[in-house]
Amino acid sequence: MPRRIVIIGAHAAGVDAASAARKTDRTAEITLITEEKHAGYSRCGLPFVIGGQIPSFNDLIVFPPSYYQMMKLTLKTETKVTKIDTGKKVVETVDKTGKTEELAYDSLIIAAGASAFTPPIKGREKQGILPLRTLEDGEKIDQAVKNGAKTAVIMGAGLIGLETAIALQERGLTVTVVEMLPQVLPAMLDADMAKLVQEMLQQKGINILVGKAVEEFLGTDKVTGIVAGGEQINADLFVSAFGVRANTQLAVDAGVALGETRTIKTNARMETNIKDVYAVGDCAESTHIVTQKPTVQQLGTVAVRQGKVAGINAAGGYALFTGVLGSAVTQLYDTQVGVTGLTETAAQRARIETVTGTITSKTKADYYPGAKPIKVKLVVEKESQRVIGAQIMGGEEVTQRINAVSFAIQKQMTVRELAKADTAYAPPLCETWEPLVLAAEMALMKLR
Amino acid sequence: MPRRIVIIGAHAAGVDAASAARKTDRTAEITLITEEKHAGYSRCGLPFVIGGQIPSFNDLIVFPPSYYQMMKLTLKTETKVTKIDTGKKVVETVDKTGKTEELAYDSLIIAAGASAFTPPIKGREKQGILPLRTLEDGEKIDQAVKNGAKTAVIMGAGLIGLETAIALQERGLTVTVVEMLPQVLPAMLDADMAKLVQEMLQQKGINILVGKAVEEFLGTDKVTGIVAGGEQINADLFVSAFGVRANTQLAVDAGVALGETRTIKTNARMETNIKDVYAVGDCAESTHIVTQKPTVQQLGTVAVRQGKVAGINAAGGYALFTGVLGSAVTQLYDTQVGVTGLTETAAQRARIETVTGTITSKTKADYYPGAKPIKVKLVVEKESQRVIGAQIMGGEEVTQRINAVSFAIQKQMTVRELAKADTAYAPPLCETWEPLVLAAEMALMKLR
Repeated sequence: MPRRIVIIGAHAAGVDAASAARKTDRTAEITLITEEKHAGYSRCGLPFVIGGQIPSFNDLIVFPPSYYQMMKLTLKTETKVTKIDTGKKVVETVDKTGKTEELAYDSLIIAAGASAFTPPIKGREKQGILPLRTLEDGEKIDQAVKNGAKTAVIMGAGLIGLETAIALQERGLTVTVVEMLPQVLPAMLDADMAKLVQEMLQQKGINILVGKAVEEFLGTDKVTGIVAGGEQINADLFVSAFGVRANTQLAVDAGVALGETRTIKTNARMETNIKDVYAVGDCAESTHIVTQKPTVQQLGTVAVRQGKVAGINAAGGYALFTGVLGSAVTQLYDTQVGVTGLTETAAQRARIETVTGTITSKTKADYYPGAKPIKVKLVVEKESQRVIGAQIMGGEEVTQRINAVSFAIQKQMTVRELAKADTAYAPPLCETWEPLVLAAEMALMKLR
Repeated sequence: MPRRIVIIGAHAAGVDAASAARKTDRTAEITLITEEKHAGYSRCGLPFVIGGQIPSFNDLIVFPPSYYQMMKLTLKTETKVTKIDTGKKVVETVDKTGKTEELAYDSLIIAAGASAFTPPIKGREKQGILPLRTLEDGEKIDQAVKNGAKTAVIMGAGLIGLETAIALQERGLTVTVVEMLPQVLPAMLDADMAKLVQEMLQQKGINILVGKAVEEFLGTDKVTGIVAGGEQINADLFVSAFGVRANTQLAVDAGVALGETRTIKTNARMETNIKDVYAVGDCAESTHIVTQKPTVQQLGTVAVRQGKVAGINAAGGYALFTGVLGSAVTQLYDTQVGVTGLTETAAQRARIETVTGTITSKTKADYYPGAKPIKVKLVVEKESQRVIGAQIMGGEEVTQRINAVSFAIQKQMTVRELAKADTAYAPPLCETWEPLVLAAEMALMKLR
């Protein structure tokens, strides 16, 4: 009898899990279940459709129906899992027509994702608070712009918040971003780097209010304004980018244990506490490579890497997940901003004593036309002298510098080794002394 | 009495050595001697002045006279060192007026560089064979174009040869590149990757002849044509890009030992066999990080890294050079080409058994407009599974991918670790699955 693998969720984590399972076991019966109408699309691309860089929301569908056919995967859309019975090893579902079904599994992968979250703010039951999590969410925001919205308030200055703010500005709206914490990108950057991002966004004409919590939604049925930091801000469009919460209720009800991050606890094979039940993606916990402690990084790359490991294991193979560094990057106008490992702030929280090295340089030889500024901040563990984090902001080639530092962290490179590293050089492409190396030098000086 | 440091050579290696020496010993008397009229300029930038991207050759002067003043360095230009006496610890010089001088040293740094080299080909005494090594060389080629040259032959398909070929084509010339070896960029790429570069250049209209040695220079006083592979090629302009030879004669005459690469043998402190004599840059040997064998990589980054180490040591400090990987990159039209570590060919020569992983991907999310192709070839040592080299060709972000693999090699990352690595992702900046990771996957499949 073929192995039955059921996967709850059909986006980055779910589809990559299904693909890896199929490659591991060619005869398994693999079923993906999603509540959404569309499966296998890129959430990360949503702001860029709103901004107009990508023509259509349908372009984001990375795995079209033909993919599931080719890979012999059964995909059930607009289908909700109502219960997981880990004793009988079945999941119960209901589709949009109300038809219920019991699906037996040998292996179950929970890739239930996360949902946009609006805190319990007075008036949040009113209409018109739009999150940007699903393709339909994107379409609603796009429609609001088409309907003539002229002003927007974005609540939350994380990655999605800022990317959406820029997208709406590019569509001609006047945009205000409200963030409760005292800086933009609070999960990603230290305050000193965040300040530069905020100034850049303000120079581009985005109104940014940090350190101001949304206190109330105003309006009768439909929101017409908010109160934040005592100030009233009216707008035509309100985007909820407060953050997301992992979808764990179904798992919890089935006896699946959560970890200290309040997401599903997993081991290196992405197994939960219950036999043959795996968890991956935004609803799953993983281990941080630097701290070796549980962490939750709701990132696409983490989702696909975890999905692959769970898919292999669920199909009878053997694979280990090696942990996360939270490497992330974004493009804000013509500035790229990236992070890997721990920020100085996160290191302090983890009680790691650090020194930092910060440098401003250029992305090409100083004499080469078009050289753009770049700023690197390295975070180094003082005692071991290991590099444990980097934040980079610059005009080009930020992503792969983040990856380079990510590799360095993963291989426990010391700041001294980084300061001596062999790097490539050509006038149109970089400076003779690589900014990463110079930042390492700066940190070293503090260690002497 | 202040320490006297004499440096022969005043470009990348020499000036960086002087700067590091000054930072180490604030009272030392530091003298740089160069035969050239201009010091402290970027040789790597020469093709881009010819191509017109950089307005003037003077823009390449990275260290202007004010720099030497600020750093309290004595610079002697148009001055030739005629002898090094390591017993008396003096160097003898003659300047352009014929005036001789004896300069005593406590530490001597030989940063004598390398010279453009034309093989002993029939007719090479004729005029008009222009190398591209010095600023004056660049000016001569530029002048030839201004004088109306319509066709050019570039002899040698290394980095300088190809960059110059493109520069001349951008100036409107019809360009032919002749290379003795069967591929372009023979020191940098394997034949399979080089073929793609060659095809790209040919599509852009550059005529490329590989596997054809220059057999004769034709013409009366001035070269008007060459014979290569039995075929006659006439042109208005002939650029000698055969390669360079380290300037070692002065050192050899003084009893400084050469290594097996026929460049000056050095230890990790950049010391030669003679006490208080250091050698750095294009005339100096170093250790390859992968093979742990002597190698010579005549690259700007190596020069500045070695210069810094020698400068610190020569000034009484202590610094070690950690070796080279030959990381290099170039921009050829809108294609970036880079390498680090060993090619498959170089690994074979070093008797290292390898597997490779090659992948073609894109530089942005597939659905994001403007995604450019990128190709990665990873070289892995079969027994240890360590990554030992990479060649990358792509539309953007090649340089920092090279640096990322360089860090991986330096920290002995295995291909399995690379296949599991944590990387950053954003639709406008890269694919979810990083091409380096996918190439590692491909190599892993061959190891199973």
